[in-house]
Amino acid sequence: MREAIRVAVLGTGQMGSGIIRLVLEKKGLEFVGAYARRAGRGGLDVGRVIGSDTDLGIHVSADLARLIEQAQPHVAIQATCSGIDDAMGEIAILVRHGIRVISIAEQMVCPACSSPAFAEEIHWLAVSRGTAVVGTGINPGFVLDLLIITLSGVCADIRSITAERVNDLSPYGPTVLESQGVGLSPAAFTEGLEAGTVVGHIGFSESIHLIARAVGWDIERIEEKREPIIAGIARETPFVSVQPGQVAGCLHTAVAYRRGEPVITLRHPQQVHPSLEGVETGDKIEIMGTPDVRLAGHPEIPGGQATCALAVNMIPRILNAAPGLHTMADLPVPAAMLGDARKLVREAEQGY
Amino acid sequence: MREAIRVAVLGTGQMGSGIIRLVLEKKGLEFVGAYARRAGRGGLDVGRVIGSDTDLGIHVSADLARLIEQAQPHVAIQATCSGIDDAMGEIAILVRHGIRVISIAEQMVCPACSSPAFAEEIHWLAVSRGTAVVGTGINPGFVLDLLIITLSGVCADIRSITAERVNDLSPYGPTVLESQGVGLSPAAFTEGLEAGTVVGHIGFSESIHLIARAVGWDIERIEEKREPIIAGIARETPFVSVQPGQVAGCLHTAVAYRRGEPVITLRHPQQVHPSLEGVETGDKIEIMGTPDVRLAGHPEIPGGQATCALAVNMIPRILNAAPGLHTMADLPVPAAMLGDARKLVREAEQGY
Repeated sequence: MREAIRVAVLGTGQMGSGIIRLVLEKKGLEFVGAYARRAGRGGLDVGRVIGSDTDLGIHVSADLARLIEQAQPHVAIQATCSGIDDAMGEIAILVRHGIRVISIAEQMVCPACSSPAFAEEIHWLAVSRGTAVVGTGINPGFVLDLLIITLSGVCADIRSITAERVNDLSPYGPTVLESQGVGLSPAAFTEGLEAGTVVGHIGFSESIHLIARAVGWDIERIEEKREPIIAGIARETPFVSVQPGQVAGCLHTAVAYRRGEPVITLRHPQQVHPSLEGVETGDKIEIMGTPDVRLAGHPEIPGGQATCALAVNMIPRILNAAPGLHTMADLPVPAAMLGDARKLVREAEQGY
Repeated sequence: MREAIRVAVLGTGQMGSGIIRLVLEKKGLEFVGAYARRAGRGGLDVGRVIGSDTDLGIHVSADLARLIEQAQPHVAIQATCSGIDDAMGEIAILVRHGIRVISIAEQMVCPACSSPAFAEEIHWLAVSRGTAVVGTGINPGFVLDLLIITLSGVCADIRSITAERVNDLSPYGPTVLESQGVGLSPAAFTEGLEAGTVVGHIGFSESIHLIARAVGWDIERIEEKREPIIAGIARETPFVSVQPGQVAGCLHTAVAYRRGEPVITLRHPQQVHPSLEGVETGDKIEIMGTPDVRLAGHPEIPGGQATCALAVNMIPRILNAAPGLHTMADLPVPAAMLGDARKLVREAEQGY
């Protein structure tokens, strides 16, 4: 059988570590290196960084170009950032080296949405180097876009799409909690929105763009709204203590308009311990059309686990992809990878 | 803009007619011809056949090769049959002429499952003619396979998959009702099973094969069971009258085993008017794994409408596909086609 698929991971935070653990578990994949931006991570054994008891004998690199030279990955998974401006430098280096890239940066789910010039540039660079790039993740990348697009496939016509993801932020660390304003007073939440420290969900415009492009709708404008979710009773996590009257999370809504009518409505209330106040978490999609389609699941698909799995499960898809920049909607859907990953890579695949 | 996508439809029954109506509605598609096997259909105006008030000026052809010569379709949608033995003759003619084929024959959803030799042959024939073939439909083709595969993409590991589609056969005609044994006595149902006149659902092995291949499971055996659903009260449709104690439908179950354990369980109870006895129709998927994933919708996605929509919505996907035989799991997911179909066809597409 062919050699193992060599995988490098950029990022050694919660997501990067989860991805590394999965790559280590999966048959047919070989974990060949990790890169970290964070000062002090370079040189550490990857085993220690991901919380393993034993050393892996592979050290975190702080120099991406050197990692590539030494580890010679076929695929790199980027888990270092959310924004495209922040992601593009690393992606350009990887693509220039002909390495296939899977990014979990939210804005990479649809780079043409926030940065059409970068999307164009990276597409042609990937084509010229015979490699391919895709962005994925639970949201954006799956629940509020790919799954909606998939379900739309059974429709002859659609009047409107409404979807909601109600999740629990309790497992998350301070960075995520701060970005949703958890623990602030309502006034501080409003100030945080104005200052840009409270951001809500990143990815609504990406999801809407993906859906609209897939079904062929021209969207005139997107209206986003971020509202504080006020705690009625105390809610505690290891990182935050929310008193009654304080902010337990952020209800972020986006509505896309076409010909003056709202056609796509996405709601994503994110808060700590919603169940304490009787709020059930879950994912819900409702398409009004011919026919109507409704699908819902409780609790929500857990974001962290799912994003790590999606990133790894996309490996054979990006290896099989035509050269260029892709979205989740242009590639075959990911599937759980329970057998040997090598069997999923097409024989005729170039560059691998 | 490029010329319209020329579409021919094989079959003028309920599905074929529904597909023709959609092709006529969609921007960027041009309906160029219909073929019917049924004696007496040839020569009729297609408008009349699909229940329109006005003639279309296109006549149903009883000669497929001649239809191809005259109509020069880019894509043909096959809606003439369920089994692969029955489907392959028409598909071979289309492929030999270099026409892209979308079939709603249930067994064409995974031809390698029932007829590996035909699958191999048609794949290489399609490659040699620079064309592509795919089978689709609501089930098999979507609810109990593609949707499950898509959801599995968020999983790092899976122990078992259970899915159920509870539908209402009331809108269907005599052919479908007879195939499910509706209106028979329990004894006649059993005899019908033995004689092969009561068949239950066609497509479980196709769905299981698609799922297993996508996630990399080797399936040892599939156990199928067909049980009568006995009416407790009278159930009426325009085509059948079911008395209490008679058969209202067929509960068809398939269980796939791997290493001695049941790993995929698909249940599909099909009956007339289930709501009369308090049975709610719907689609339900449950994946036990890391993480668990549960998704359900009520009522079920309506089979007839959805199959017609899927067939038409796959047109840009099959035009963009690499030459060869495909399954729904190897191509990008279908999406509702609400804009101009031509915009969805890749510029670089060969043969179109």
